[in-house]
Amino acid sequence: MSKGATEKITISLDAMGGDNAPVNEVAGAIETVRSNDGINITLVGKAGIINEELKKFSYDSSRIKLHNAEDVITMDESPTEAIRKKPGSSLVSGLKLCKTGEADAFISAGNTGAVMAASLFTLGRIANVNRPTIGSRFPTERGITMVFDVGANVDCKPLNLLQFAVMGSVFANHIYGINNPKIGLLSVGEEKTKGDTVTVETYELLEKSGLNFIGNVEGRDIMKGTTDVIVCDGFTGNIVLKFAESVLSLLKTKFKDYADRGLVNKLKVGMAYGTLKDILKDFDYQEYGGVPLLGINGISIIGHGRSSPRAIMNMAVKAEQMARAGINDIIAEKIKDIKDYTAQSE
Amino acid sequence: MSKGATEKITISLDAMGGDNAPVNEVAGAIETVRSNDGINITLVGKAGIINEELKKFSYDSSRIKLHNAEDVITMDESPTEAIRKKPGSSLVSGLKLCKTGEADAFISAGNTGAVMAASLFTLGRIANVNRPTIGSRFPTERGITMVFDVGANVDCKPLNLLQFAVMGSVFANHIYGINNPKIGLLSVGEEKTKGDTVTVETYELLEKSGLNFIGNVEGRDIMKGTTDVIVCDGFTGNIVLKFAESVLSLLKTKFKDYADRGLVNKLKVGMAYGTLKDILKDFDYQEYGGVPLLGINGISIIGHGRSSPRAIMNMAVKAEQMARAGINDIIAEKIKDIKDYTAQSE
Repeated sequence: MSKGATEKITISLDAMGGDNAPVNEVAGAIETVRSNDGINITLVGKAGIINEELKKFSYDSSRIKLHNAEDVITMDESPTEAIRKKPGSSLVSGLKLCKTGEADAFISAGNTGAVMAASLFTLGRIANVNRPTIGSRFPTERGITMVFDVGANVDCKPLNLLQFAVMGSVFANHIYGINNPKIGLLSVGEEKTKGDTVTVETYELLEKSGLNFIGNVEGRDIMKGTTDVIVCDGFTGNIVLKFAESVLSLLKTKFKDYADRGLVNKLKVGMAYGTLKDILKDFDYQEYGGVPLLGINGISIIGHGRSSPRAIMNMAVKAEQMARAGINDIIAEKIKDIKDYTAQSE
Repeated sequence: MSKGATEKITISLDAMGGDNAPVNEVAGAIETVRSNDGINITLVGKAGIINEELKKFSYDSSRIKLHNAEDVITMDESPTEAIRKKPGSSLVSGLKLCKTGEADAFISAGNTGAVMAASLFTLGRIANVNRPTIGSRFPTERGITMVFDVGANVDCKPLNLLQFAVMGSVFANHIYGINNPKIGLLSVGEEKTKGDTVTVETYELLEKSGLNFIGNVEGRDIMKGTTDVIVCDGFTGNIVLKFAESVLSLLKTKFKDYADRGLVNKLKVGMAYGTLKDILKDFDYQEYGGVPLLGINGISIIGHGRSSPRAIMNMAVKAEQMARAGINDIIAEKIKDIKDYTAQSE
């Protein structure tokens, strides 16, 4: 299913997703085709307002197409209900273009739950994958670490976590170019007996999986950069991710409060702020290209609601990489290996 | 069981717990009695080396006693095994002083798991409490938030989480003086249907509990300060706590890396660092007085291994407050109310 390096990859972009749609989406599409020869974009959404936005730019019209979709799924809508009630939405229509082969990958900065549900519903799962997973990148002391799952599955069984590890390993290997990625299992202590029941049972599976499993990692290890992929249930992963995202905003508030306490403080903060910003740019989740949904029979990347045009482009680039690597064929193969081994061990 | 304001509170202090024991423990005991008229300390541990440390200070010897205990439980030992094999350890001996009434409360900066296990084993549980819990404070945009549980219970049932909420509410009310504390349930979305199975079922219980339950809170809300007490299982709570603790050290590393990239950077960091330190002092977990173990039939506070003398004193002050408030009598009463209501709703 992978395309040759010379063929263009077509990405359908949900132009109505995101808090600032379609402005950032259109600007992101323009930025993408200008900077990436290998990517064409199909903007999916309300043709009227998208065309208004497109008029602001000069671009190669053979590389940005428009696919009209009049319905919009908003950020607050209940995912399953929204998908059912709005089959003509930009989100569902964009995914259908992947189903029919008119696009190679789909990206959206819209309602996360709805993108997950619609991706699964429209594209289906890779054979033998029990549950698709979304992973997020965490900045670390050296490089980055991907955490799977960060919210697709709140209640997990050991087999689910094992499959997240397999998919995460393939992603880290083929998208980040990490050879034999180190896999950690998130828990409350290093010993294999530490953790809740599901985690302790998962340890046993990971030990025998043939993956480069380095054992349990704790909350304090996530940002140490000693692990390429960390596996956990989507309940824990989602809470840690959102906590991490809130650290920057807390720091900003603390800086502001400190500055408000007098002129000297204000001057100090003024001097410190630029430095801090430089240092913390790795933590700026808006800059990064969304989180991949792995395990579905297609490519779907979900961005932050506040994605900037640059973040949209980064999502498109990540989607192109996934398409060119034929990542789903590799996942299918590795998951099958695991299936054979878990069947044996039963 | 609460003592009058004029009576002294005696605290047994595990002088051998902590990474820098007994140096910080003895210095902490001295600082405590100097600054707190209402507290006497019994140092529990190896008399020889404790006396060597005590010699460095002048103090009122009627207020600091020594209780010899020759065994030491180290940080790495398996809790249950260590307690069984070392009944004469400073940790177990210190707790026994509470059991016999020779002390009103126990504090230790030693092996967290061992303190939890020995506290439960030696002092037992408050009537109707199914699982004791440890809570930790998180700094927020305004004031602090206590999170229960942060590691005592990795697998929890809804009734356990409900009881954590009751105990946390009593603690916030009687120790932090917060009237009708706001209780949040940690989850992955605001709606009552969001979360894993245990969380969704806990929501129902909390709604009917008579507590000031404000609903689900997400990872990003922990440090917003909108909630006084946040309830979660000890697996998630422990991971978030350790992640939070690691943020400071990551920031330090990032600052150092940045400074190493050239003289201008080095100067910038030099200017920014003092300001940052001022701003981040709320995040310095070593400064704070340990985490209370609630639900046991006595008072036990567990400190960070790296507790400074000041942190030791803060633990003693917190223990005094808990003893004077008669917090366990109040918990017993509130847990009984909950028991009656959950029995009815069954």
